[in-house]
Amino acid sequence: MVTASICTIGDEILIGQIVDTNSSMIAKALNAIGVKVVRMISGADSEEDIFATVEHCARLSDIVIITGGLGPTKDDITKTALAKFTNAGGFIQSKEQYEIIEKVLTARGIELSDINRAQAMVPDSCKVILNECGTAPCMEFVMQKENGNQYLIFSMPGVPFETENALPKVIEEIISHFKMENIFHKTVCTFGIPESTLSKMIEKWEENLPENIHLAYLPNTILGVRLRLSIYGIDKENGEKEIDSEIAKLKTIIGDAIYGYGESSLQQAIGRLLKEMKMSVCTAESCTGGKIASLITSVPGSSEYFKGSVVAYDNSIKINVLKVREETIAKYGAVSRECVEEMAEGVRKVMDCDFAVATSGVAGPGGGTDINPVGTVWIAVSAKGEVSSKKLRFNAPRAINVERFSSNALNMLREAIINL
Amino acid sequence: MVTASICTIGDEILIGQIVDTNSSMIAKALNAIGVKVVRMISGADSEEDIFATVEHCARLSDIVIITGGLGPTKDDITKTALAKFTNAGGFIQSKEQYEIIEKVLTARGIELSDINRAQAMVPDSCKVILNECGTAPCMEFVMQKENGNQYLIFSMPGVPFETENALPKVIEEIISHFKMENIFHKTVCTFGIPESTLSKMIEKWEENLPENIHLAYLPNTILGVRLRLSIYGIDKENGEKEIDSEIAKLKTIIGDAIYGYGESSLQQAIGRLLKEMKMSVCTAESCTGGKIASLITSVPGSSEYFKGSVVAYDNSIKINVLKVREETIAKYGAVSRECVEEMAEGVRKVMDCDFAVATSGVAGPGGGTDINPVGTVWIAVSAKGEVSSKKLRFNAPRAINVERFSSNALNMLREAIINL
Repeated sequence: MVTASICTIGDEILIGQIVDTNSSMIAKALNAIGVKVVRMISGADSEEDIFATVEHCARLSDIVIITGGLGPTKDDITKTALAKFTNAGGFIQSKEQYEIIEKVLTARGIELSDINRAQAMVPDSCKVILNECGTAPCMEFVMQKENGNQYLIFSMPGVPFETENALPKVIEEIISHFKMENIFHKTVCTFGIPESTLSKMIEKWEENLPENIHLAYLPNTILGVRLRLSIYGIDKENGEKEIDSEIAKLKTIIGDAIYGYGESSLQQAIGRLLKEMKMSVCTAESCTGGKIASLITSVPGSSEYFKGSVVAYDNSIKINVLKVREETIAKYGAVSRECVEEMAEGVRKVMDCDFAVATSGVAGPGGGTDINPVGTVWIAVSAKGEVSSKKLRFNAPRAINVERFSSNALNMLREAIINL
Repeated sequence: MVTASICTIGDEILIGQIVDTNSSMIAKALNAIGVKVVRMISGADSEEDIFATVEHCARLSDIVIITGGLGPTKDDITKTALAKFTNAGGFIQSKEQYEIIEKVLTARGIELSDINRAQAMVPDSCKVILNECGTAPCMEFVMQKENGNQYLIFSMPGVPFETENALPKVIEEIISHFKMENIFHKTVCTFGIPESTLSKMIEKWEENLPENIHLAYLPNTILGVRLRLSIYGIDKENGEKEIDSEIAKLKTIIGDAIYGYGESSLQQAIGRLLKEMKMSVCTAESCTGGKIASLITSVPGSSEYFKGSVVAYDNSIKINVLKVREETIAKYGAVSRECVEEMAEGVRKVMDCDFAVATSGVAGPGGGTDINPVGTVWIAVSAKGEVSSKKLRFNAPRAINVERFSSNALNMLREAIINL
């Protein structure tokens, strides 16, 4: 099996100022073509660390992918370190990357400086892989291990969307160098059953899985618990068949808790359902502050079924825009079944939609009461005027509470759409 | 200088299904007490990888912090691997953690199962650090290197908010074990000047920095370019003085581009300004889909100055709720100066606020035109009825475009508040 390691270079990662999202993005892409990632490692913007991490990774794997340290500023030294590591004779200009640098900076309204120009210079030991949406080119080095085996080093920019853009070209290079063992994955996305409960519910099913199928639990506040099935040493078609037959058995156990497969999300599942039914949705959000709308609109094409949202943080907005009755808030409070139900039905009418979902709760850290402690949320869904609601409680910091409120609201909406 | 390494254990990280946010959170906390993080490394849920990564880290550093692999399911084996690694005699129950498990699961409405109960069992070689908001306890092991020096291993849960909650206790343990070299950091948060332009503007200032002050650039789509100044080997008071005098010089060069210091964000800066002035804000969002409201409300206490938002994805919402004139949209289109200015002033009136910010643009991947290609956004701010607007263009995927639209809208709002 072809193996890879991923190195991220940057003081800003070691001091914790930057969360490394590149490694997971790269790992996902490698995984999909059957390359096994055996290590991820982060080191400093120093020649010593770059050498040490690349050497460590080269010992463990056939491919070393490095991201970061290619910026225009003085603390970025990956390129010069790699030139030394690969015994480059000198630097040469990549004309094509130079043209991209001009184009990218002009589009951003930035005048080309000497440090921008220098980014088109690359070690003569590398093959350039163009970075179409940034200034630092990717580089590929074909190297030799002590035992004579070849290994590849790739250097990619640290800016995540530039990495993402250049990644398919790196993957192509890898495919053209190695022969991959067959592998096939399918991820089952579930929501609403906690991991430990789920694990108990599907214990027997798990025990009876064929030996060549491997199961991994991927719990996530926004996405729920995803179950990833991997099958090795079999072609795609038969692999998919085998996995699908196991998933069919799983469905009889957990049914509608499954909302999708692969890189799915609750908002995508909702989008698929609403498009199919040619129906529309809107949201009224208090404690979630626009998060649910933001998640729904993260799906390209969501304008087909999402009309809008009223973030009613202040009670005056609940009353004036959403038409919640003043008496309701006076009598029951804003965090109540009565208020959230009026919010849902109110926004549905204002926006003239088939469905609406509303939230009102206490995200924290302040604002908790005896009846509604921090982490409490009321969620209501109106399905063509049929309103249902529930109260949930979580025990997390503000940001996570908002995520949980939002994902549970989306799931409640999804269930209401299914059950219409 | 006391050094640390951070290991994350989990197949789900190596296959790229989970982005590791724990390492940066832990690194930030270590950094703040003067512990230098020298390596971050991720390995699989296998005994072999756990041993290899812990050994690798123990060679490099005085502290090894491990997160992950403590879940209730079969693929989580960190605890048993560490028991073996530390030559534990057996497992014993942590009564206090058991009580927490009962409390946490009851609050979530989950019935205690045997696998939940097993989470309270720990190797007898460890000191338990309670996990107050989850089921898996943290563990501390005092170990000895071959040279006789002590080193510490900490095992923490993989769920980020559980790690966050337990982290202060781990930090306390570290402080009680080591004497730290003095270090002082200050981060200057800037927005609106691209990294390469900024680097050129402050080149002379950077060259004249005293030798014991180190500068790092931390560019970020949401936060702008942050400049982190670190000073070593000096007490906090004098360190702060020295750094502040350098920052004073920096201010004369880049002025209002500085929006804050340390862990600041544009939405926090806006919150500080509005609280001081006792003024309020609301948003009207088309292409940003609630993201701006979501960012503003991510700040605890934002209900003091944020009244709400209308996400007007569909033109009918722009017309009916925000009172944009039908003729405006018919004549100029929704992505236009005219429309976005009416949106800003419209929402400000509907929500009765001092300030309003509005966006209308094309996030992509579809919907682009010759006049308004994907990545185009119109942003308008109304400051007590004084409306200004500007058009920007970016060249990124949907999610990043939305982030850039939102952060630029927030910065335009901030500038309007400053200049009122």
